[in-house]
Amino acid sequence: MPQTLSIKKETLPDWHHLRYEPLPGSEKIYKPGIIHKDIRVPFRQIHLSPTKTANGQIEPNQPLCVYDTSGPYTDKQATINITQGLAALRLPWILGRGDVETVGAQKGHNVTQMHYARKGIITAEMEFIAIREGCSPEFVRDEVARGRAIIPSNINHPEIEPMIIGRNFLVKINANIGNSAISSSIAEEVEKMTWAIRWGGDTVMDLSTGKNIHETREWILRNSPVPIGTVPIYQALEKVEGKAEELTWEIYRDTLIEQAEQGVDYFTVHAGVLLRYIPLTAKRRTGIVSRGGSIMAKWCLSHHKESFLYTHFEEICEIMKQYDVSFSLGDGLRPGSIADANDEAQFAELQTLGELTKITWKHEVQTMIEGPGHVPMHLIKENMDKQLSICHEAPFYTLGPLTTDIAPGYDHITSAIGAAMIGWFGTAMLCYVTPKEHLGLPNKKDVKDGIIAYKIAAHAADLTKGHLAARAWDDALSKARFEFRWRDQFHLALDPETAQEFHDETLPAEGAKGAHFCSMCGPHFCSMKITQDVREYVEEGLAEKAKEFRSRPY
Amino acid sequence: MPQTLSIKKETLPDWHHLRYEPLPGSEKIYKPGIIHKDIRVPFRQIHLSPTKTANGQIEPNQPLCVYDTSGPYTDKQATINITQGLAALRLPWILGRGDVETVGAQKGHNVTQMHYARKGIITAEMEFIAIREGCSPEFVRDEVARGRAIIPSNINHPEIEPMIIGRNFLVKINANIGNSAISSSIAEEVEKMTWAIRWGGDTVMDLSTGKNIHETREWILRNSPVPIGTVPIYQALEKVEGKAEELTWEIYRDTLIEQAEQGVDYFTVHAGVLLRYIPLTAKRRTGIVSRGGSIMAKWCLSHHKESFLYTHFEEICEIMKQYDVSFSLGDGLRPGSIADANDEAQFAELQTLGELTKITWKHEVQTMIEGPGHVPMHLIKENMDKQLSICHEAPFYTLGPLTTDIAPGYDHITSAIGAAMIGWFGTAMLCYVTPKEHLGLPNKKDVKDGIIAYKIAAHAADLTKGHLAARAWDDALSKARFEFRWRDQFHLALDPETAQEFHDETLPAEGAKGAHFCSMCGPHFCSMKITQDVREYVEEGLAEKAKEFRSRPY
Repeated sequence: MPQTLSIKKETLPDWHHLRYEPLPGSEKIYKPGIIHKDIRVPFRQIHLSPTKTANGQIEPNQPLCVYDTSGPYTDKQATINITQGLAALRLPWILGRGDVETVGAQKGHNVTQMHYARKGIITAEMEFIAIREGCSPEFVRDEVARGRAIIPSNINHPEIEPMIIGRNFLVKINANIGNSAISSSIAEEVEKMTWAIRWGGDTVMDLSTGKNIHETREWILRNSPVPIGTVPIYQALEKVEGKAEELTWEIYRDTLIEQAEQGVDYFTVHAGVLLRYIPLTAKRRTGIVSRGGSIMAKWCLSHHKESFLYTHFEEICEIMKQYDVSFSLGDGLRPGSIADANDEAQFAELQTLGELTKITWKHEVQTMIEGPGHVPMHLIKENMDKQLSICHEAPFYTLGPLTTDIAPGYDHITSAIGAAMIGWFGTAMLCYVTPKEHLGLPNKKDVKDGIIAYKIAAHAADLTKGHLAARAWDDALSKARFEFRWRDQFHLALDPETAQEFHDETLPAEGAKGAHFCSMCGPHFCSMKITQDVREYVEEGLAEKAKEFRSRPY
Repeated sequence: MPQTLSIKKETLPDWHHLRYEPLPGSEKIYKPGIIHKDIRVPFRQIHLSPTKTANGQIEPNQPLCVYDTSGPYTDKQATINITQGLAALRLPWILGRGDVETVGAQKGHNVTQMHYARKGIITAEMEFIAIREGCSPEFVRDEVARGRAIIPSNINHPEIEPMIIGRNFLVKINANIGNSAISSSIAEEVEKMTWAIRWGGDTVMDLSTGKNIHETREWILRNSPVPIGTVPIYQALEKVEGKAEELTWEIYRDTLIEQAEQGVDYFTVHAGVLLRYIPLTAKRRTGIVSRGGSIMAKWCLSHHKESFLYTHFEEICEIMKQYDVSFSLGDGLRPGSIADANDEAQFAELQTLGELTKITWKHEVQTMIEGPGHVPMHLIKENMDKQLSICHEAPFYTLGPLTTDIAPGYDHITSAIGAAMIGWFGTAMLCYVTPKEHLGLPNKKDVKDGIIAYKIAAHAADLTKGHLAARAWDDALSKARFEFRWRDQFHLALDPETAQEFHDETLPAEGAKGAHFCSMCGPHFCSMKITQDVREYVEEGLAEKAKEFRSRPY
C-alpha cells in the first residue's frame, strides 16, 4: 500500500499552477451506491438558467449531469495536498475482499476484477462504474467477465475513481504524458496529468524515457484519480543504458514487478512482435514506428531468438494477476504511414495478439488490444472488424488513426477524423494525438488541444452509437443556443473558457450575453430570431397571424 | 468588362499585410496548354533534398507538384497592384468565343460552360482544368455537359484561374468571408481572401451583410484568382433596410443583375423553401438556421404566398446564363442541430432542389446543391445518397457537417470529421467552418485554422477515393519523415510554417534539422533509427549480420 511520499525539497514542483476551480457554471456532485453504501460517484453538474418564452413566461431548465474525469481537483470541499497524494478511496474496498497482502495478492489468490466478475461478485468498483455510466451493476460485471470490457485498477492504486473501457460503455480517451532525455521535468508531468483530466482524459499514460522515471511515476500515481498506463520496456531499456540487445527477461520481469507494486494500472506489452514478422516490415514506407516494437525487433534480430515477452508470456500473466494490472497488448508493428496501413505485418501481429488474449483470459487477467496508427478512411473499418473477430471482442484501444500524413502540426485533427470513425465502429478507448505529434513534446496547450479534439471524437461516436446521455448534452446546448442563453451555451461547451473568450472577442459587453443576436449577423439579420417568429406564427395558426406579422417593425 | 477601380483614398486598405512570398521550399511553376496555346496552369512545386542512404550514397528526390490555389500572389515574377486588380487572363478566351457584349451575353446567346460542353466545345477553361487536375480535357467537358461538375466562371470575372467542382475531381473547399453590421472593414475582407487562397481555399464566398456590400465585393472580385460566391438575398435585404416582408422580385432581380455584372461566379439561391415546408420546422430543436432560409420563410408567411425565388425561377435562369453565373441551390431548411438532422423539412426541400436542378439544366445553367449542417456520423451517408439520386448527380456542396453540437470554439474540428466522411461519400466541395462558428466573426487566424482543417478533410477524402496525386503527397512526406529530412517534412506539410515552429520549440538548433532523431524520444531511443537498422539487417541477410549487429554501440 502506498505511503506518504518523500521527495527532496529542491525538486518539489511549483504546484501553484495546478487548477482546482470547477469549470465555469459547474459544480461537483456525488451519487451514492446501493450495494456498497460508501460509494460516492462524481459528476459535473452544469447549472442552466431558465428559458424566457415569447409570451414572457419563465420555464426552468434542469441542470445537466455529465461524466467527470477531473477527480477531487474540481471539488471545492476536497483537501488537496500534492505531497500527501489523493485519498485512497478504494483502500477499504480492496482490504475488505480479504485477499491482499502489503504489496500484492495473497499467495494463490487472483485479485483481478475479471476474476471477481467470473465468480459472480459485483465489486464496489463495478457498482461505482454502473452509477457513472448509467447502467446496471450486473451489466458491468457481465461485460468484464466475458472480457468485453476492462476496469484498469491496480490494488496499489487505491486513489482512482473506477472507470471502464469497453465498447458498450461511453467511448474513453487516453492522454499521453512523459518526459524524454531531451526535455520536461517531474513538475511539468504531474501538472500535465491534472490538466489532462480537467479537460476529460479518462486514463493517462506515462511514457517517460529519460531520468527519474520511477520518481516521476510515483508522483503521478499518488496524485492521479484516473488509471495510469505505462510501457515497461522503456524503463527496462534505461536500465541497460539504451542497448536493446542487452535486455533480458529478468530485467524486464523486475521492472514489471517494480511498476506493479507502485500501482500502474495497465501495461503496454509488445508481445506480438515475433521474429518471423520482422522481415515483413523491411519493404514498408516507414518500417517499425512503435518504440516498443522497434526495441523488441532489434532484440529478436540481434539474438536471432523469439521475443522474451512472447516466450515468458504466462509468467507475465502470473505477475499481472497478483496486482490486477491490465494488459494493453501493444501493436508494435502498427503502420506509421498511409502507405503501410492494413499490411501483412500489421495483421500478422494482430493474429498473435488474438492468441495471447486467450492466454490472458485463462489467467483471468484483464486485456485490451492496441491499434493503429495511420489509416486512410476506407481502410478503418477493416481494422475494427478484424480486431473484434481475431481478439474475441477484447476492447480495442487505438491511436487515432491519422487519416493522412500531410499535416504535421495538425495531427490532432487528421487523427480525430479517424478516431471518431473507429469509435463509432466499436473502439473502446481512443489514444489522443496532440498537434506536436511527429514534431516535438507536447506542452500544456498541446495537451488540452489533443484532449478536446478527442473528446469531440469520442462524443461524436457516442452520439452515433445512440447513447442517450450523449444526445441529451447536444440537445441541451442547442436549446440554449436557440434561446440565446449565451452563458449556458458557454457552460455546456466542452471548453467553456474558449467559447466565452471567442464570443467576447467580438462582443465583449456584459449586455451581449443576454442579447438576442450575435456578431455574425447583427441585430436585424438573425436567422434564429426570425425562426422564433416563424415558430410563433405557425403555432398560432397561419391565417389569423398573416396580417399582424406583416406589420411588424423589423 | 471590369475597369480600373476607383476608391476613395481614405478607405484604401493597408495592403502591406498581404503576403506575396511563396510557401517555404516552394516555387510557382506553370504548365502550358496544347489545344489552347496561351494557357499557363499554375502549380506549387515543392523542392526536396536528396536521400542519403545507409551506405553513403546520394539519391535525388523528384520535386512534388501540387495543386495551387494561391494565384499570382505567390508568383515572384507577377506584378501585384491591388488598385488595378489582377490580370484578366480569361479575357482573350471569353472575347474569342464571339458571343459576349460589354456586360453580358449577346442577345439570344448562352455563354455557360455547360452550353459549350453540350455543344462539344472544349473551352480554354476546360483544358486549363484538365491540366490542373491531371485528366483529359474531354473528360472535363463530358462531366460538365452531364451536370456532374461545374466550372464557376462568370464572364465578368476574367481574373480567375479556372477550377472545377465535381465528385470525379479533387475535393474542393470554400472559405466564407464577409463583414456584418457589427464588425470588419473592406481591407480586412480583401486580406482574408488572399489569406484564404494562400492556404488552399478553392472558392471564396463573400457573405457581407453590413454597409459597403457592393464596394467590398468589387475589391474582392478584382483581386481574386478564385471563383467568388454570394447570397444575393443578403444585399437585397439591405436595400429594404432589413425588412424581409418588403422584399420584392424586382428588387431581388436587380440585385442579381448588379452582382452578375460585377462578376460573381455563383449565387446561393434558397428557392426550395416552399410555403408548405415552413410548418415542418416549427417543432424542431433549432428551427430554421439558414439566414437566407429564414428570410424567405418570413416573406412567405407574411404574404402567405409562394417564394418569389420559386415562382420566378426560370427568369433567374435567364439572367444566370447571360453571364455564366452558376447556381448553388441553397438548403434553407438545413438542420442546425443534431436533433434536427435528416428530418422531414430537410428532405422535403431537397426534393424541390432536385426539381429545380432539372429546370436549370434545361437552361444549360451550371448547378450545385448545398447540404447540411449538423448531422451525426451515422446519418451522413443518407444525405449523400439522397442528394445524388434526387438531384441527378449535380455536385453536392456541404457545410461540414458538424458531428456534434457540444464544442463551440472547436467547430472546425467537429465539422472536419463530417466533412472528411461526406467528401469520401461523394461531396464535391466542402464549405469550411472556423473555430468562431456560432460565436463570432472569424479573424485571420480563424480563417487559416478553418482552411487547414478543411484541406485535411478534403485530402483525406481524396486519398480514400483513390486519387493517385493525393497519395503521392502522403508518400513523399512519409519518406521524408522516415529519412529524417526534417526540412522536406516541413515543406511538404499543409502548413510548413507551423510544422517548423513546433519542431523548433523543442529543438531550435540549426543542426537538429539534420539530426537523425527528434525531441520525442531523444537520440538513443528512436524507433525510426532502429527500424533503419532493422531494414538494413533484413536486406543483408539475417544470419550473416547477427553477430555484427549485436556488437553495435547503442
